[in-house]
Amino acid sequence: MTRTPVALYGAAGYGGQELLRILSNHPLLRVAVATSQRHAGRPVEAVLPQLEGFYPDLAFQSPRAPLAVRCEAVLLATPHGVSHKLFAALLERDPDLKVVDLSGDFRLHDEARFHAAYGAERSLPSAAAKFAYGSTETNREAIHAARWVANPGCFATGAILALGPLAERGLLQGDVTLAQTTGSSGSGADPKPATHHPERAQDLRAYKVLAHQHEPEVAQELERLGAGGFDLGMVPLSGPFSRGIFTVASLRVDAAVDVAALYRERYSGEFFVRLRSESPALRHVVRTNFCDLSIHRRGERVVVLTAIDNLGKGMATQAVQNLNLILGLDERAGLLAPGANP
Amino acid sequence: MTRTPVALYGAAGYGGQELLRILSNHPLLRVAVATSQRHAGRPVEAVLPQLEGFYPDLAFQSPRAPLAVRCEAVLLATPHGVSHKLFAALLERDPDLKVVDLSGDFRLHDEARFHAAYGAERSLPSAAAKFAYGSTETNREAIHAARWVANPGCFATGAILALGPLAERGLLQGDVTLAQTTGSSGSGADPKPATHHPERAQDLRAYKVLAHQHEPEVAQELERLGAGGFDLGMVPLSGPFSRGIFTVASLRVDAAVDVAALYRERYSGEFFVRLRSESPALRHVVRTNFCDLSIHRRGERVVVLTAIDNLGKGMATQAVQNLNLILGLDERAGLLAPGANP
Amino acid sequence: MTRTPVALYGAAGYGGQELLRILSNHPLLRVAVATSQRHAGRPVEAVLPQLEGFYPDLAFQSPRAPLAVRCEAVLLATPHGVSHKLFAALLERDPDLKVVDLSGDFRLHDEARFHAAYGAERSLPSAAAKFAYGSTETNREAIHAARWVANPGCFATGAILALGPLAERGLLQGDVTLAQTTGSSGSGADPKPATHHPERAQDLRAYKVLAHQHEPEVAQELERLGAGGFDLGMVPLSGPFSRGIFTVASLRVDAAVDVAALYRERYSGEFFVRLRSESPALRHVVRTNFCDLSIHRRGERVVVLTAIDNLGKGMATQAVQNLNLILGLDERAGLLAPGANP
Amino acid sequence: MTRTPVALYGAAGYGGQELLRILSNHPLLRVAVATSQRHAGRPVEAVLPQLEGFYPDLAFQSPRAPLAVRCEAVLLATPHGVSHKLFAALLERDPDLKVVDLSGDFRLHDEARFHAAYGAERSLPSAAAKFAYGSTETNREAIHAARWVANPGCFATGAILALGPLAERGLLQGDVTLAQTTGSSGSGADPKPATHHPERAQDLRAYKVLAHQHEPEVAQELERLGAGGFDLGMVPLSGPFSRGIFTVASLRVDAAVDVAALYRERYSGEFFVRLRSESPALRHVVRTNFCDLSIHRRGERVVVLTAIDNLGKGMATQAVQNLNLILGLDERAGLLAPGANP
Repeated sequence: MTRTPVALYGAAGYGGQELLRILSNHPLLRVAVATSQRHAGRPVEAVLPQLEGFYPDLAFQSPRAPLAVRCEAVLLATPHGVSHKLFAALLERDPDLKVVDLSGDFRLHDEARFHAAYGAERSLPSAAAKFAYGSTETNREAIHAARWVANPGCFATGAILALGPLAERGLLQGDVTLAQTTGSSGSGADPKPATHHPERAQDLRAYKVLAHQHEPEVAQELERLGAGGFDLGMVPLSGPFSRGIFTVASLRVDAAVDVAALYRERYSGEFFVRLRSESPALRHVVRTNFCDLSIHRRGERVVVLTAIDNLGKGMATQAVQNLNLILGLDERAGLLAPGANP
Repeated sequence: MTRTPVALYGAAGYGGQELLRILSNHPLLRVAVATSQRHAGRPVEAVLPQLEGFYPDLAFQSPRAPLAVRCEAVLLATPHGVSHKLFAALLERDPDLKVVDLSGDFRLHDEARFHAAYGAERSLPSAAAKFAYGSTETNREAIHAARWVANPGCFATGAILALGPLAERGLLQGDVTLAQTTGSSGSGADPKPATHHPERAQDLRAYKVLAHQHEPEVAQELERLGAGGFDLGMVPLSGPFSRGIFTVASLRVDAAVDVAALYRERYSGEFFVRLRSESPALRHVVRTNFCDLSIHRRGERVVVLTAIDNLGKGMATQAVQNLNLILGLDERAGLLAPGANP
Repeated sequence: MTRTPVALYGAAGYGGQELLRILSNHPLLRVAVATSQRHAGRPVEAVLPQLEGFYPDLAFQSPRAPLAVRCEAVLLATPHGVSHKLFAALLERDPDLKVVDLSGDFRLHDEARFHAAYGAERSLPSAAAKFAYGSTETNREAIHAARWVANPGCFATGAILALGPLAERGLLQGDVTLAQTTGSSGSGADPKPATHHPERAQDLRAYKVLAHQHEPEVAQELERLGAGGFDLGMVPLSGPFSRGIFTVASLRVDAAVDVAALYRERYSGEFFVRLRSESPALRHVVRTNFCDLSIHRRGERVVVLTAIDNLGKGMATQAVQNLNLILGLDERAGLLAPGANP
Repeated sequence: MTRTPVALYGAAGYGGQELLRILSNHPLLRVAVATSQRHAGRPVEAVLPQLEGFYPDLAFQSPRAPLAVRCEAVLLATPHGVSHKLFAALLERDPDLKVVDLSGDFRLHDEARFHAAYGAERSLPSAAAKFAYGSTETNREAIHAARWVANPGCFATGAILALGPLAERGLLQGDVTLAQTTGSSGSGADPKPATHHPERAQDLRAYKVLAHQHEPEVAQELERLGAGGFDLGMVPLSGPFSRGIFTVASLRVDAAVDVAALYRERYSGEFFVRLRSESPALRHVVRTNFCDLSIHRRGERVVVLTAIDNLGKGMATQAVQNLNLILGLDERAGLLAPGANP
């Protein structure tokens, strides 16, 4: 069976490394091109020794060079501000290329919202409207029909899966408070003060309080799903673990609504969303595409908890899920890995 | 200079161990009696080797035996349900005894509230009214005048210091949401599934969502300070670190109020509360009595963040602070230790 | 394609959980029976929520009941002292059963050595001689020819892969010192003081110094490979991580021997042993069957470092590797997962 | 009581931060000058918020400026290669200055050994001979008589305390193998790949195997104590914790020697060395000046284990201990802090 070749840009970053790991086991796809500006020309296995044995013949190429192999699709695991330029260049060479972009460049449709979030311009602003927002469980049909997907941010994924079912029913109103704790891999592969081990190992702290760039994409998706009259407040926190995002979403819902039943029904057919009777736990979802979720209630107060892997469902595995969809494959292909406990 | 003898009950638990550590350096107090049911008769340094060199002549005595040395004050670092019985027995022997109780037995004045939180009866319910609630910075005068202090819960301390200034001004209204993440030492010295290292080391999860027993004592104290018409919703989380509680408090405050200025003024004379321009960090307060705090705002939305050590300001150091007060000592005696960074 | 049914005893322990995880993705085998004394009768996914979606129809059965489905092979992920009894009972029912035992019950051929290591008797001592010792890379032919395999201990695996190539050439002599640090999952699924998170999270300490029960099986295997006149000294350490064993092996080798070349040649055909030019790292091998290894030299002094996953190559994945061999399958089936970096 | 002013160079590094923390509580000394090249001119508490409340009036000065306050002694917590230049400049201004240097610049007396270890020249090589090597417990008299002290390296401290008693008796011979695991704070305050949290959080790896620059100073001190005919082999490891060094020292000693009794006697008067019947544990010594130690034996094989805080006894607290000695103070002044358990 020949596996379809895909190209991976930004392959040496954390998102790229995860995609290489996952796709090494994909039954239908294979990474035929991997780019890295810093490591161009070096064998993948020399730069990423954890992958030794799986990419014996692959070397990083420069992102500026034409694709060494014709690929049907491209994964852009490149930073904000880089993806949109690569996208323009790639499409010029091959207008039929299918694309999943993991950056924030094409997530926000509204130009003002984009500018407020990223403080930057983007080329091809008109292209953004043609990108399907890649929150698979809430936007599957549009993704399936699209050629280009803007893969959601990690915080956004945890928040949308927590709140989407209420938004779809018009039950999302008033103050919605999000406290979301991320692992250190969310800061990327380059060392920085916030990820300096001696200071992070047993610490907890917040950052970009009420000002994180993922908040507007959550609002945009919830509005698209039918919500109105709500006010989001996102508090991102940095936790002393390497992978995972835990979301606490708090809001009020009319006491007459059976929220637990609503979620149970809504997610009953979703393989990658698992309802828990007690709090989900990060350790059960790390290195998987699963989102574990629980509902808690006291009168009108509702708390929804979600646990995902920031590099998994919050990034690389959801990108593969979306890539599967736009290529017409089984959405679960390559993603059938259960979690571990310890 | 003779140091005043005090007795410490439950000295082999985590609260007790911290008290032994702190009091070993107290310039005015010394632990003359340390009890432990499990270790009665054994030298303190044999059971707690980290203290070797500091208690060469002290052995644990049984909590049931009369105090081997006459003590002016007693610290009860004993579990809920145990403290109130010890209290009754101790007072019978010595009605003048001063007491700081670290358990939840005497924190709630209202019997119904107590029963709802702890699902139990207590002896001497009438005594609860005579206990000053030991939130030092919000209730100092009452503590100073009291003989008995009910030391606050760890979550409660982080929450009250975050919300007290608003409550005092009558600005605490509507929904108040608390997401509070605790270190594993909060579960005590006995191993249990929730503190099993292989499963906790890189995990995050919630527990007792909207149902934690510290919530009512926060409400009680905020009401006492002047708040009304608010609804607390506490979400406790278990973090993969050993010490610390990080609190995210979210609420709405009239946009005309200068919240930051209010906190700055309110805490300007409080040595143990430090205002930060950015998020506080657990690592800076661990093993100290400090509460670091920051204020964040977007329109009416206000987020207050606090960081304390669950075993420090959330337990043992605040108990010493209160003990100092009821003994007429400088409140800071024995507590002048700065934090560390790594 | 029908997958061959196998039975898994002790399926709710950490070794069992890993085997369930790995075998869920095995292309040729499936777990048809999973036993757990504590959880008999309960659905696997209810007890082990990280596996939800992968074992919808499997419930734990009692280890005492006959196999609900006829299985060609059995994995015994049961504790020392339990496996040998189960083995006897299982063989009585089905003398053709193939068995991989993960306990220490059948690793040591010499009865005195067994007694010294485990302080216990075992039934069927004569059976031990018929068990192939499951150090796959050093004993593959015997395993391939065997029906029963005694899967090595986790420390033993890290040590044998470090020292085997020297033993095979008769170069292992004199003092051989092992300092081996294990993750907390090596202590199993039941909470105990040594795995209490508040005390383990940032700690390091040794245990069973020069007295660990895995030492004799290392000696036995190295002797079998040709070593003589050496003295092993194993120092096991408990590290503050959940998974992995890092081995430092120190010894002297004649300066004329090109040790690096010897290892390079010896392991060139071994997919699961990867030679590194710098120190291996636990993070690259966790959740895999890989052993990463490096050689360091100064004059006659040689240091060999190995990194494995204590639950992977040190336990569950090596058991699957051995199971594949005794069933005549490709040894790598189900084990082709690369490591991750963060 | 007036506290003697001392100057602290490199005060914003990890060693400097620890010294500021410890000296804030020193009964007889106070930091009157703190230098930082990067932060010159900024208030100490603005740069190091964990110290807020303890240095309200101190600002960093440039290391190049003359001391703003006359100081009797200087602590150089500056990097290798910087200290020796500062020393020369300081001595020129004030030839009577007492100095404790925490770098490696003056530890090695032999110029060839220095060059081999640090690959560099140093100014004032002749000065090195006048520095007392600051291994307090093995070299107290020389330190007491000295004006200048070269504070030992962190690995060296753990190793010398493990082996010194044997060296003093001429019992240290043959191969001596050291496996020493350090916390991440040993790499200093600047982020680097080896301390990037996502990759260090659950990792273990070695570095500079048989080639660490602390090895020669261990050899030098052991030789000075009387050892000869031994060969040291040091394997440094990077552990996933922020503070601490755990040392495993392995060697052979004539079976007739009662090694445990020898250590018990040798260290009986040493307050900061505590003999344990079981393995020491890092968590008991972190943030202290203690070295906990245990002896293990099987025939001639001897294993000595030590646990210290790399930033404490391995750096800042030992520097204060030495500073006390050269200033004629009680060696324990400012260091009477017990360890904690969780």
